[in-house]
Formats: sequence, C-alpha cells, structure tokens
Amino acid sequence: MTDSAAQVLAAHIREVADFPKPGVKFKDLSPLFREPAAFTTVLTDIAGRWAGKVDIVAGVEARGFILGAPLALQMGLGFVPIRKAGKLPGDTHSRSYDLEYGQATIEVTTDAFAAGHRVLLVDDVLATGGTAAAACELIECAGAEVVGIEMLLELSFLHGRDKLPGRDVRATLVD
Amino acid sequence: MTDSAAQVLAAHIREVADFPKPGVKFKDLSPLFREPAAFTTVLTDIAGRWAGKVDIVAGVEARGFILGAPLALQMGLGFVPIRKAGKLPGDTHSRSYDLEYGQATIEVTTDAFAAGHRVLLVDDVLATGGTAAAACELIECAGAEVVGIEMLLELSFLHGRDKLPGRDVRATLVD
Repeated sequence: MTDSAAQVLAAHIREVADFPKPGVKFKDLSPLFREPAAFTTVLTDIAGRWAGKVDIVAGVEARGFILGAPLALQMGLGFVPIRKAGKLPGDTHSRSYDLEYGQATIEVTTDAFAAGHRVLLVDDVLATGGTAAAACELIECAGAEVVGIEMLLELSFLHGRDKLPGRDVRATLVD
Repeated sequence: MTDSAAQVLAAHIREVADFPKPGVKFKDLSPLFREPAAFTTVLTDIAGRWAGKVDIVAGVEARGFILGAPLALQMGLGFVPIRKAGKLPGDTHSRSYDLEYGQATIEVTTDAFAAGHRVLLVDDVLATGGTAAAACELIECAGAEVVGIEMLLELSFLHGRDKLPGRDVRATLVD
C-alpha cells in the first residue's frame, strides 16, 4: 500500500525545541523539501484536490514560495508571490495584521491577478491564521476570489481556522 | 523556430522605475512566474545545463525559492533554502557580507547537505554578487561543493562575477 500524503509529510518533519523562542516546539518541514519523491507525493495530493477549480496559485513569503511555485507548475498554473512590506516594486495592495507583539504588513502587486481569477492560497503552516486571513483580504482587494487555502501542516491547538470563517481550508497533516 | 529561454525571459520582465530607490530601474521577474509555459521553458533550459552534474539545488531567500524549488523537482533533486539570519531552526552555519549600507547575514542548517554533495546555487538576479559569494562560502562551510551558480538575470554593469572568481556562473539573460 502506498503511504498517504499525510504519512509522507509526517515522516519528513523535524521538531526543534525552543525555536523561535523558549517553550515552542518548531516543526521544520525542510526535510520534505530535500526529498523530491516525498515532496512530489505531497504536491500531487494537493494538486488533485484543486484541479480545474482554480486559475492561479498565490503563496506567502517565504516558505509559501517553496510550496507554491512547484505546486503551480505541477498544476499548469501561474504563481503569485505575496510579500512582506516594501519588497514588491510598483503599485501594490497592502494589509496589516496583528502579531503576538506588534504588527506585520503583507503586499501584492496590483497587476497580480486578472479580475475574477480563482485563487488557491498556500503556505506551509497554519498557526494563528493571522497571515492567511490578511492574505485572503489582499487577494480579494486585488479583484480575485479565494477559492481555497492549502497548508502543509495545521497546528490545530492554535485555532487558526477561527480567523478564516467560511473559507475552504485544507491541510495535508493536522497536528 | 522556438524562442530561446533568453528571449522568453526577456519577454516576461517588467521594468519599474525608481525602485527600491530613486534612479534604480528594477527588473521585476514576476510576470515570468505567472506564465507556466514560459517559466517551464526557462526551467527546462537550466535543468539541461546541469543534469547529472549536481546532487541538490540551493536557493537564496526569498525569490531564489520561487526559482529553486521547482527547478529542483524538475531535476528530481532536493531543495535547500538559504535564509536570512534568525529564520532557520536548530544549528546553522552563518555568513555576513557587506551591503551598500550596513551588513546582511545568511544562514543554512548544519544538516542541509550530505558531505561532498554537488550543489547548484540559484537566485533570480546577479547584481553586485555579495549574496552569491556569501552563499557559496556557506555551502562550502557546510561540507558541500558549489558546482555552479545559475541566475535568471545578470546585471553585468554591476560586475557581480568579480566577486565569484573561479565559479561557473551562468545566467539565462545578461543585461
């Protein structure tokens, strides 16, 4: 029997204690990115869920780029980077959101989407959901539609879905 | 006749005046990432240059991830992210280098490469070469070998190659 995408992902996560701060057990997904067969299994599973339902893939800086760019190509679609403030040239839309301490701002260029584009938003980890919620607002502000959200790993104890009501949120693995 | 990778890339660059500062004409490659056929043409060209010669692909945060992750998968290889300081968990190697004003530091995890791994380093734009030179040192410090460097676009008037003596540096397009 072939391992499921969830099993494959689970086998390629490295836990790092006390990062980025004491008491936090960080889930490092970089072992997945180093194993092309495993990474392809996970990408193929995600692509299968959204084939024919989306027109373009958007990924959030920076780890969302490692997932989103190859996913888009595997689906035969374009990729749009959502970046931290000040990184994108030309006219941009921008959204700020609260972090535990302070605020963060993300941006997308105003020419990123065609009107009505059906967008799949991707990132590596769904934690508190603040970044994903802001990214959805940004995509809609740019005239496109968020059809779904894909995360490799959902940290369910952080209740990120509460910030994404009515959204079709999927995760390869829920922790 | 099929357009060359250089022609395809040239047709998907957007010039933005006065970014990131007045007087600079920024070359935005995001139109390439939005066009899967064009992006695949460029990736296939790069993959052909290095097939069988490298064991793994390393990309520099953040735009190097958009290029490096799909290139690695297309070549059937793993991908290693080189990140800005403080972003990678666990034990890391780190290198600082000079910018026009101040310094930047990049890191890679100590488990990123197997000993003797032949590495292809990729990034989107070769400008002054400082980041690429530091990334090469980092890869070698981690016990691997830099076999080649691929940039989508080389800004030759900034003489980035001068900081990369003896390196096999290729660019899809030289400006």
